[in-house]
Amino acid sequence: MKYSIGIDFGTLSARALLVRLSDGAELATSVYDYPHGVITDRIGEHKLPSGFALQHPEDYLEALRFTVPNVLSAAGVSADDVVGLGVDFTSCTVLPIKLDGTPLCLTPEFSDRPHAFVKLWKHHGAQAQADRMTELSLELEPERLSIFGGRISSEWLFPKILETLENDPEVYAAADRFIEAGDWIVLRLTGKESYGACIAGYKATWHKRLGFPKRELLRALNPELESIVGTKLNMNVLPMGSKAGEITPEGARLCGLRPGTAVSVCTIDAHAGAPAAGVTAPGKMMMILGTSAVHLINHPEEKKIEGLCGVVEGASIDGLQTYEAGQCCLGDHFDWFVKNCVPEDYTAAARSEGISIHKYLRNKAIKLRPGESGLIALDFWNGNRSVLVDSQLTGLMLGMDLNTKPEEMYRALIEATAYGTRVIIEAFEDGGIAVNELYAAGGIADKDEMLMQIYSDVTGREIRLSGSPQAGALGSAMYGAVASGYFPDMESCGRVLSKLKDKVYRPIPENVIIYDKLYREYKWLYYLFGRESDSMKRLLAIREQVRKQDRSH
Amino acid sequence: MKYSIGIDFGTLSARALLVRLSDGAELATSVYDYPHGVITDRIGEHKLPSGFALQHPEDYLEALRFTVPNVLSAAGVSADDVVGLGVDFTSCTVLPIKLDGTPLCLTPEFSDRPHAFVKLWKHHGAQAQADRMTELSLELEPERLSIFGGRISSEWLFPKILETLENDPEVYAAADRFIEAGDWIVLRLTGKESYGACIAGYKATWHKRLGFPKRELLRALNPELESIVGTKLNMNVLPMGSKAGEITPEGARLCGLRPGTAVSVCTIDAHAGAPAAGVTAPGKMMMILGTSAVHLINHPEEKKIEGLCGVVEGASIDGLQTYEAGQCCLGDHFDWFVKNCVPEDYTAAARSEGISIHKYLRNKAIKLRPGESGLIALDFWNGNRSVLVDSQLTGLMLGMDLNTKPEEMYRALIEATAYGTRVIIEAFEDGGIAVNELYAAGGIADKDEMLMQIYSDVTGREIRLSGSPQAGALGSAMYGAVASGYFPDMESCGRVLSKLKDKVYRPIPENVIIYDKLYREYKWLYYLFGRESDSMKRLLAIREQVRKQDRSH
Repeated sequence: MKYSIGIDFGTLSARALLVRLSDGAELATSVYDYPHGVITDRIGEHKLPSGFALQHPEDYLEALRFTVPNVLSAAGVSADDVVGLGVDFTSCTVLPIKLDGTPLCLTPEFSDRPHAFVKLWKHHGAQAQADRMTELSLELEPERLSIFGGRISSEWLFPKILETLENDPEVYAAADRFIEAGDWIVLRLTGKESYGACIAGYKATWHKRLGFPKRELLRALNPELESIVGTKLNMNVLPMGSKAGEITPEGARLCGLRPGTAVSVCTIDAHAGAPAAGVTAPGKMMMILGTSAVHLINHPEEKKIEGLCGVVEGASIDGLQTYEAGQCCLGDHFDWFVKNCVPEDYTAAARSEGISIHKYLRNKAIKLRPGESGLIALDFWNGNRSVLVDSQLTGLMLGMDLNTKPEEMYRALIEATAYGTRVIIEAFEDGGIAVNELYAAGGIADKDEMLMQIYSDVTGREIRLSGSPQAGALGSAMYGAVASGYFPDMESCGRVLSKLKDKVYRPIPENVIIYDKLYREYKWLYYLFGRESDSMKRLLAIREQVRKQDRSH
Repeated sequence: MKYSIGIDFGTLSARALLVRLSDGAELATSVYDYPHGVITDRIGEHKLPSGFALQHPEDYLEALRFTVPNVLSAAGVSADDVVGLGVDFTSCTVLPIKLDGTPLCLTPEFSDRPHAFVKLWKHHGAQAQADRMTELSLELEPERLSIFGGRISSEWLFPKILETLENDPEVYAAADRFIEAGDWIVLRLTGKESYGACIAGYKATWHKRLGFPKRELLRALNPELESIVGTKLNMNVLPMGSKAGEITPEGARLCGLRPGTAVSVCTIDAHAGAPAAGVTAPGKMMMILGTSAVHLINHPEEKKIEGLCGVVEGASIDGLQTYEAGQCCLGDHFDWFVKNCVPEDYTAAARSEGISIHKYLRNKAIKLRPGESGLIALDFWNGNRSVLVDSQLTGLMLGMDLNTKPEEMYRALIEATAYGTRVIIEAFEDGGIAVNELYAAGGIADKDEMLMQIYSDVTGREIRLSGSPQAGALGSAMYGAVASGYFPDMESCGRVLSKLKDKVYRPIPENVIIYDKLYREYKWLYYLFGRESDSMKRLLAIREQVRKQDRSH
């Protein structure tokens, strides 16, 4: 029997999973909570500015030392029979290191310097840098900018590095490399540097044809950055499924596996869930439904698709383009509603039934028929990512009368996100990429049956759910198994290891008919307020002007 | 010293006010609660259908017997010095009587027949009849229909009479007259029948030039109705300020005033408040702000104004046209919001501060600057009366993000009603009727300073508030004084008797600038959803279709 291990490095903990390759049985898992968690208050004497979110790299190594031996012993499996290891990590989560792999923050000179630590994906100290990079990209690299959603996020790589350069140039100067924490784990295990295509693409705007950002753009950001690619930044991007290297004797001491065990290149945690649900071949769209929503689909060719968040070759499967689209807020919409718009008698009733307000609202909303409320909403509370790529949009709800109830508005918000998903699907199909099957993963997909049925009815498609409770770790174990050569490719690996739940959401014909009508109304509003009219932008401009006056008083 | 008495007959009680004519001093008031109140459950053996709202006419007579002597003795005034009496009444509140003034319900044959009792203004048994009259009017009397807001209300006179004819033809046959309760009070005091222009106009679609509805229309409704005008319906319409007659010996026994005392024709309760605040001359608009809103303005000529609820000559001042416009819901909007959209922590905080939720929200909303929330709403939760005249419209709110707070939405709703008021003002001005000064009365005007300031800022006009706590009774007393000849006309009477509060709401220039911008956005949305697009109607049609299917299951 042969086995593979996947390790899913999340925001607060890492989780290892040991899988049997003959049948995909998940034999053991082990979780390690990071002792330092997310560091937001201080590093040594330094009080951190608001928005900072740092981590301690020793936590990641300790997670390796703890979880891998744990799953081996729990499953009664010998390290000799583990052929591969894969790692996925939050991203962009980046740290400065020395050439030998030592994090700068673990050297005596820099142990109290915030910028020497790991900047977690949700570190928000680089907004000004991101905005400058967006502006300069518009001018100097418009094609790349449009491929990656029209806006550089403060959570991405270059803004975070630039923030270090501008705020602690000594750290910048002393760093031999800036490396994603996931790639750093692979480096510590294999002694080799690699740069997973998924992370390089979505977080550093790397593109197979265009490469990394042009020197001209980097110079305009800061002359010091001009030659960073190939010096302080590894430019050796590898497609997912590649072998990054083999475990060294030192790596073996770290995790308890045998030297020579294959290690795959690292991927982004959310992306690892797609192969775990068998989303490898073209035509299958993975929807990751959480506080926001991410849509992933693979296709052999590069096509022009409206409103993408990014297209990266090899980000999921070697040789395929992975297209990413997204919705700026999903669970966040519903949380806003529950926090701000649910009256006391509902809250009290939910409490007396011992259920969450979400659950209480769903219990009422599920009894409503499509169209029965007369409501329709635009899910723009946090702007719109795909397909409008516009953060200057705001929410809209229409159709209320004096009998409108909270559960009707709640359901209208959910339906709005379903319509938004359908717009994305249609954008792919209009661009020549068929979307034949839908798959869903994430907290909302598992918990909210009403939402899933609405999504099925609105899109007119069956939806299957990711079956493994640790889809990220399973996807990583699959990459590890392919890296080892046990399977020739991810698709054949997926046929044995990927998992789906038995439950399939199927469109209900009479609902599809009504939602088709409502979707036409949504789409009219969507393009009216998203494109034709500047009404929302004018209101935001007035708001900004008033708030600015307030601040200056 | 000379005096006048006004009696304001409301829904649950009548209130008399005694006023000194030399200086307008309000010397005494007296309230009488109707013992039978609103009868909604049964008449004798007959259980009443839902929507029925009847009253007992004896209550009104008892109110006369109680309140008039009361104010005389409380003020220490002799009946000899009372020169006039005026009456205002809820309307359309109608009863069938015999020629001698006896209500049919007080005769033995009809004492247990619901349709023989007084149908109160909010009696809702005649919707089918109203709908038929709307349809037939569209075909046979389109001009009249458009003058009176495009739709016949089930609360008006002809639907209520038709309901009686169709459901209890014996009552219809036995009735010598159908008369408004207010006119019946005048009849009982003076022995003369009159029909106040205000009531005849707004409740029976009487128009100076067009008269009462055409025989052709009445015949189409029911052949029995064809000749009702001039037989069972008094057609002698008198302008407001006219003397209906003088108190007879029998009337004197009823109320304790002297025979020969002048009695003015009756008006609608809400309308009586306009002269009480000095709104008599052209250019002054009265806004009555309650659960819904009514706008009144006088002008010498008949003009074509968009979206009127009605124009009636002599409804307020002899020789002037009174224009009425309206907003379908005002306080109802805010009540809906408070009931459905205010979270538990707000409700709890309001309770612990010992204030209403409205007050709690206002305390937060008043700190917001215009435009600061980025929100805008269309106040169509109950359709739109003026100027769109369309009940098939629904609410809209736009501009929400994940930080939007309940008080911001609450304020946006209030602002929406202010923009709606401005649309009405502009419709008058576009039609050639200048609106120079604004006056407000009603529960909301007295209680909600934030709303009043917003109305002033949005309309760019000063707003004055009605000053008498019993504006209806004061207005009636004024009509009584003019009917007596003590004052030559309402305008000169108003100079002495009308009252305003000291508080004047004045537009704040920096708010006016921002609200001008926001109003442009509102107006664009208003005509977009109110006229150009059928989006709201299509959603209502889908809703209706789904609800109908549900009912048929």
